[in-house]
This record gives sequence, structure tokens and C-alpha cells, in this order.
Amino acid sequence: MERGRVLLSVTGFHPQRWHDLLSAEREVVTEPDGPADPSIHYAVVWKQRPNVLSSLPNLRVIFSIGAGVDHIFADPTVPDVPIVKIVADNLSQHMAEYVVWRVLDHHRQGMLYRAQQPKKTWHEPPQRSAQDISVGIMGLGTLGRACASALLPLGFTVNGWSRTDRPLPGVSTFAGEAGLIPFLNATDILVVLLPLTSATQGIVNYGLLKQLRRRNGLGGAVLINAGRGRLQKDADILRALDDGTLKEASLDVFEVEPLPKTSPLWSHPKVFVTPHAAATSDPSHLAPIMLRQMAAFERGEPLQNLVNREAGY
Amino acid sequence: MERGRVLLSVTGFHPQRWHDLLSAEREVVTEPDGPADPSIHYAVVWKQRPNVLSSLPNLRVIFSIGAGVDHIFADPTVPDVPIVKIVADNLSQHMAEYVVWRVLDHHRQGMLYRAQQPKKTWHEPPQRSAQDISVGIMGLGTLGRACASALLPLGFTVNGWSRTDRPLPGVSTFAGEAGLIPFLNATDILVVLLPLTSATQGIVNYGLLKQLRRRNGLGGAVLINAGRGRLQKDADILRALDDGTLKEASLDVFEVEPLPKTSPLWSHPKVFVTPHAAATSDPSHLAPIMLRQMAAFERGEPLQNLVNREAGY
Repeated sequence: MERGRVLLSVTGFHPQRWHDLLSAEREVVTEPDGPADPSIHYAVVWKQRPNVLSSLPNLRVIFSIGAGVDHIFADPTVPDVPIVKIVADNLSQHMAEYVVWRVLDHHRQGMLYRAQQPKKTWHEPPQRSAQDISVGIMGLGTLGRACASALLPLGFTVNGWSRTDRPLPGVSTFAGEAGLIPFLNATDILVVLLPLTSATQGIVNYGLLKQLRRRNGLGGAVLINAGRGRLQKDADILRALDDGTLKEASLDVFEVEPLPKTSPLWSHPKVFVTPHAAATSDPSHLAPIMLRQMAAFERGEPLQNLVNREAGY
Repeated sequence: MERGRVLLSVTGFHPQRWHDLLSAEREVVTEPDGPADPSIHYAVVWKQRPNVLSSLPNLRVIFSIGAGVDHIFADPTVPDVPIVKIVADNLSQHMAEYVVWRVLDHHRQGMLYRAQQPKKTWHEPPQRSAQDISVGIMGLGTLGRACASALLPLGFTVNGWSRTDRPLPGVSTFAGEAGLIPFLNATDILVVLLPLTSATQGIVNYGLLKQLRRRNGLGGAVLINAGRGRLQKDADILRALDDGTLKEASLDVFEVEPLPKTSPLWSHPKVFVTPHAAATSDPSHLAPIMLRQMAAFERGEPLQNLVNREAGY
């Protein structure tokens, strides 16, 4: 098999680093040489330009920049070739950091202390032990499992929910439609790490948030979404915060990104906003993994971390 | 041996919970029955009333409320009886939570994101991996070791410094005067968990902070003090923050507590203040441990977690 060229098709950010790193071993282009360019065997994409992939007659593999792949399927013309998603320790570690950081900030009452400080208030509110707090993780893929492993040694009670049952040591797992309400009823801090599919879009709505456990002394449940913005209904989160269903939220993702300046989430005192930065794809770590997969594929070895197109992730 | 009474001598907070819990097994008083009360065998103290302990002819053991015991020695008349300090998983776990929380907040640029949010700024700054960050823990007692164990699984490089060498798996340890500068030179985020003794008072001064590693791209070193306030020089921390020696600080303790409203630390944009709340002694967990030690002592068994009076902790 000849040495295929790589199409780097990215919208929303400038992929200079990816270009430089992939160029170490492959010829990289950001547009095909006219229609039906036969020289391109691989596409490395983030929200690729629509219709570009379907124009390539010799496309062999699509590589996703990012753990989710919904950005690829936003283009209905994506050809039926294998799609490789990112699974990297680095990404899992960054996500575990983000989730532990946000869980601890809510658990240790960071928002309260930050509100007290400008008033010079020296006051220690009652502090629960981690054992008393149930963190519920929706989505038990690589990222969800990494977060569970990072939360358990800190003493938190950890629950998990996934589409199909995925037992996990030390974690009470729930599955499917039937497991969802019991899972939510046992959860104080909800961490959303689901893939975005037709089944999960908008799943984090008011009705779901209403099922979270709200106990005396904790002052309401907490939402952390580090998955995908369109899993949630921004307006429902605001409603839940304003009527006390939710105590606080940390949101890394939003229905529309960048979060519009008109969104009340920006200025809500109980919301912490990050710009889809929970676990950024680090090109210096991930580009070499993609190049190794291309070389292995050309030696006839199987691809790793393939997307199941039917499941959508 | 007859069943001794307990003197509960506390200043600075109201010890109702301690009184209730210790009363489950012992007669508890907050003042002796006049001078030279022979019925009191045990004292449970936090910043005890001066001279009260030396008045007790049959005092057998002093129990400290809190991991540190400097508050006891503030009274020079403390009689020469065994002093038991708190060593509890619960306290270690609370401290590890606090330290991991603060390390992650600095590492993941919480101060920057909180400054961006009111401006509705959607911007992701470069993010280092935990592997690139050295957290240096000063003080490798029970609390310091618990913090090291909690930081290592998150991928941080962990250094430790103590008076005498205390090897610890996965941690680069440094000891004594000779090890201090090399330890500081290899540390990006300094976590102070030393006991307060005549040797450590004021150790966290400008000269020490100046030795911390400051690398391009990290924007200055970080200080986290969750030990004792008089380990640090408040004014030196402000100077180090203002000239860029320190990038940010999380302070749970201060030279004077409560932190005076006149202190510029309250309103410094790079300082996060908590009211000596990193690891609170939880009476419901600790009072039963004290009662068990009293019973064991009366059966002739040795006391646990004794203070070395010469070392001062």
C-alpha cells in the first residue's frame, strides 16, 4: 500500500500544532487537490468542512480530534470508513483532574468561601465528610471510569450509570432506562460524561435534575457537565438553580459554544464556567498516536478504539 | 485506678459537642472544683486557660484537640505529663481533600477562569500536565504523607521535606537544613504542613519563597499553607505576590487568627482565604478515640500518638 496523504479538516480553531506534528511523518493538506483527490487516505478532523470527506475516493480511516465523535456525524455525508476516536491516558487524566477539582470545589464549599472573602467574613460552615457525599457519574466509558478511580481514594461514595451495565470495582452501577431514576435518587453530585447521540441529546433536563437527591444540610444537588453541551438544556439548568433544585453547577460545555454573551449562565452566582477546557486534546501527545495507527494499519494490523457507528460513539 | 474526671479547657470556640460526646463515658467539667482538684485525671484542651493544668495534682494525660500542640505549650506552666495528639484518618482525609482541592485549583487555573467569567471571556489558556508540576510538601508527618498519597495518583510529581529524612514511596524526599534549598529549587507548588516549633516559626519568609522554582509558562510559584499561621510571615507573602515571586496563594492559616479585617490578604486578587478550616477536628469521630485511650491507659496499656516534648510536636 502506498503512503497515503493526510487531510486535516478542522473548523473552530487553528490546527497549526496538529499540522506541524503530523507533518513529521506524512504529507498533510488542509484541502484536497480538487474534487476526488485520490492521494488522501486519512482524515484527521474536528467539525470537518461538510461534504469534504465524501469527496475522497481512497479515504481509508477518519481520526477524530477529541474523545467524542458527534462533531463528525454532524455532516450526514460522512462515508462508511472506520472512525478512530481518541483514547489516551493523557486525556483521561486531564478529565479526572477536572472532575476531582470541580467535585472538591463544590464539596469544600469554594463558592461560599469566595463569597465570604470580599466581606472579610471569618466563618467556617459545617463540613460534611466525603463518605457522606454520593458522586454519580453518567457515562462509564474510558473517561467516566478514570474519574471514578480518581474519586474513590478521596473517600467519596461513587455511583455510575451507563446504557448497558458496566460493573466497576468500588462503584454502585446502574444501567439503562430502568436504572436511571434509582441512580439519580442516590446522587448528590451529578457528573455528566455521556457521549452525544440521538438517545442522549437533551437528557440533562429539568425532569432529570428534579430526581437528584436533595438532603438537609447539603442545600441542594450539584451538576457538573464535562461531556457535551447538547446533552443539557441550558434553560432547564437555570430554572433548577433558581428554584433550589440545584445548589450549584460547574459547566464546561453548553448548547451553543462559545457560550453566547447573552447567556445568563455567564453571570449566575452559582455557576462556574470553563470554555470546553476540561480535557483538551494535547496534539503533542495525540498526533504521534495517530501516526502510529496509520503505520500499523498499513502493515495490516487492526485499528484501535474504533467508533461503533450504530451506537454513535 | 479510680475512674478519673475530665477537664475540658477550651478557648476560642464553644465546646458543646465535645462536652456531650465525652460525657457519654466520663464526668466532664470545664473548670476544676477549686484549686488543686484531685478528681481530674485527664485534660482535653484547645488553647487551655493558662495555669489551669498546673493546678491539678492528679493530672495523668493531656489530650490535644487538633493535630498541632503548639496551642498547649503557649502556656509555659504545662505540667510534665504525657500529651496525646490527634491522629485520625478522618483528619488526614480532610486535609488531603483540602490540599488536593487547592493544588488542582491553582494547577487548573481556577483564579484565571473566575476572573474571565464576569467578562464573559471564552478563552482557554495553555494547560500543563500534572507530570510537569512538582508539588513540594514541607512536613511529612501523618498529614503530609496523606497528602502525598492523594496527589500521586493524579500524576503530580511530589517532593517532600522534613527535619529528619522520611523516605516515602513515589516521593523525592529531602531532609534538614542541607536539603531545604534543593527541595525548594525543585518545587512549583509549595504545601506547608509543618508543626509550629521554635525551629519552624517564621520559616515561610521572603527568602524561602524566593528559592521556589519559577519556570516559563507557569507564571510563578504557588504557596499553600494549611499548617500553622505563625510558620509564615504574612507581610513576606504579600511582598512575594506583588513582585511576582509567587503567582498565587491559598492560605488557611495566618499569623493572627481570625485574620484581622485590616489585613491586605483578604482583598488580594491572588490569595484564596479559608478560616482555618482545612481539616477540622470532628468531635463525633475524635471524642470516642480519646475515651478509648483513657480506658486503655487505666488498664495499663501504653498511650498512642504521644507528643515528643523536646521536638515540640
